[in-house]
Amino acid sequence: MHQRSAHRSLLVIGSVALDDIDGPFGFHKDLLGGSASFIARVASYFTNKVSVVAVVGDDFPKHHIDELTALGVDTSGIERKAGETFHWVGKYAPDLSTRETLDTRLGVFADFAPKVREDQRDAQLVLLGNIDPTLQLDVLRQVRAPALVALDTMNLWINIKRDELLKTLAKVQTLMINDEEARLLAEEHNLRRAAAKILKMGPTSVIIKRGDAGALLFHGGGAFAAPAMPLADVKDPTGAGDSFAGGLMGYLAYAGDLSPATIRTAMIMGSVMGSFAVEKFSVDGLRDLTTPRIQQRFDELAELAAFDRVRL
Amino acid sequence: MHQRSAHRSLLVIGSVALDDIDGPFGFHKDLLGGSASFIARVASYFTNKVSVVAVVGDDFPKHHIDELTALGVDTSGIERKAGETFHWVGKYAPDLSTRETLDTRLGVFADFAPKVREDQRDAQLVLLGNIDPTLQLDVLRQVRAPALVALDTMNLWINIKRDELLKTLAKVQTLMINDEEARLLAEEHNLRRAAAKILKMGPTSVIIKRGDAGALLFHGGGAFAAPAMPLADVKDPTGAGDSFAGGLMGYLAYAGDLSPATIRTAMIMGSVMGSFAVEKFSVDGLRDLTTPRIQQRFDELAELAAFDRVRL
Repeated sequence: MHQRSAHRSLLVIGSVALDDIDGPFGFHKDLLGGSASFIARVASYFTNKVSVVAVVGDDFPKHHIDELTALGVDTSGIERKAGETFHWVGKYAPDLSTRETLDTRLGVFADFAPKVREDQRDAQLVLLGNIDPTLQLDVLRQVRAPALVALDTMNLWINIKRDELLKTLAKVQTLMINDEEARLLAEEHNLRRAAAKILKMGPTSVIIKRGDAGALLFHGGGAFAAPAMPLADVKDPTGAGDSFAGGLMGYLAYAGDLSPATIRTAMIMGSVMGSFAVEKFSVDGLRDLTTPRIQQRFDELAELAAFDRVRL
Repeated sequence: MHQRSAHRSLLVIGSVALDDIDGPFGFHKDLLGGSASFIARVASYFTNKVSVVAVVGDDFPKHHIDELTALGVDTSGIERKAGETFHWVGKYAPDLSTRETLDTRLGVFADFAPKVREDQRDAQLVLLGNIDPTLQLDVLRQVRAPALVALDTMNLWINIKRDELLKTLAKVQTLMINDEEARLLAEEHNLRRAAAKILKMGPTSVIIKRGDAGALLFHGGGAFAAPAMPLADVKDPTGAGDSFAGGLMGYLAYAGDLSPATIRTAMIMGSVMGSFAVEKFSVDGLRDLTTPRIQQRFDELAELAAFDRVRL
């Protein structure tokens, strides 16, 4: 690994939640979920300069936060408030390709007002996990001069807070969303055209996550396609996109630069970490990862995608 | 290009058809279609050792065959019989992501009995385009000792001629199908598991075509993922899979070997040729291609997929 002093600091804002998940592998209750839970854990494998701003209720098991702390994450920005933790209940189709939300209980998340502490305001990389775009903008007002701000969002905000989202988007460098959200946001089915429309909304790059079809990066300089590892055992897609984001931003923090080559490698690290996430429920696939295991899957993905440049 | 004497011969069996296609870009009647039409044309850009076995009716415009001949394809195996040419009528969804068959008129194709001429029986590469698996097996009995036989099929045959298909599959080296067909054939949604099941049916490699998500190769030695070019202008997906197959087999004929590295490059050439095919209707996107244009898109695809192998 690089010298840690060269790492950039990464500030993560997102949800820390409890999920109930039904699907082909049975019903699982009170699983650790939420974008920040995945992002921070994943990024911690690349750097110890990760700090989180989030909120949990007084029902939230303390050991989840202790685990993050043990991984080197600064969890002092995870506020504990009286009330219920954000709770998501979802059901996956038998083939895991689609899911429906059965219930969303916002709990303490309903009044979440992210407070970025003084020592977090100089964060060099900021990842605005999928929360209300008004709150995302609020965070942006509190940080000073990050080298890169990346934003995730979802169909809910695109549908009900489009204007606020567009205002926030105008102030970030990178948008990370899935293919259906990109289509919804751009009102355009073709992904290349959708990306071009999104790039006119403010971001200088857009990353479109496509599940087992990999991820696409579009920016002024062109495009990059990161493959997904074809996995024989997929248990739970929840958090795959957040793990992708955590791997990408964690690697950027680790590498210490934002060159095109580094960003491509970071996309592959995102794909690697997403692949670990879906193999087990909750964050279980991300537990006890080691640098050699991450390196091994990176090498497998590189081997999966390698071909010779030939001249006809 | 390699010396042509080093090229391997490629025998293509498939349909030559007329298509009526409805969709977001209007209704187009009597377009040139059929698997062999795409495969042979595409392969002709890599080698002039392509010959075709097919059948057309007396209504089939002669100029389509003249064009293939002008491209260096041996079209003497395209039989002309009294009756109607195989005619497919289909309608694409507004976003082109799905299609339905409105009508299929087999015409002279109903009695198609592929006859492989003496001089075609020594073909080194054989591509069995998507036709009745009984006919595909019939062709296999007529060829002598090809280095590689690849087979394409579709949901229709998987559903109504499963036993015959399995018998034919047992005798080919490579199966090329799309993701939905792979799932149907293997009775397994997960593509990696589906591929593993298909490899037990006989083929030593299976190529799963996924449209704009690229293509996956699975074989005993592992897996390879070929990206698809993200295109801003897609007019007609008809023939994309056949163009992929034509590019792959055409490149294998051109390269003259079947090494793992050559097969990976051939997959990329398949992706390149599929990308040209969908940009216009019928074979129009494949007209007037030149080696430099093919090379240019190959280079673009290589650039799209390139990333550094790093060590953490």
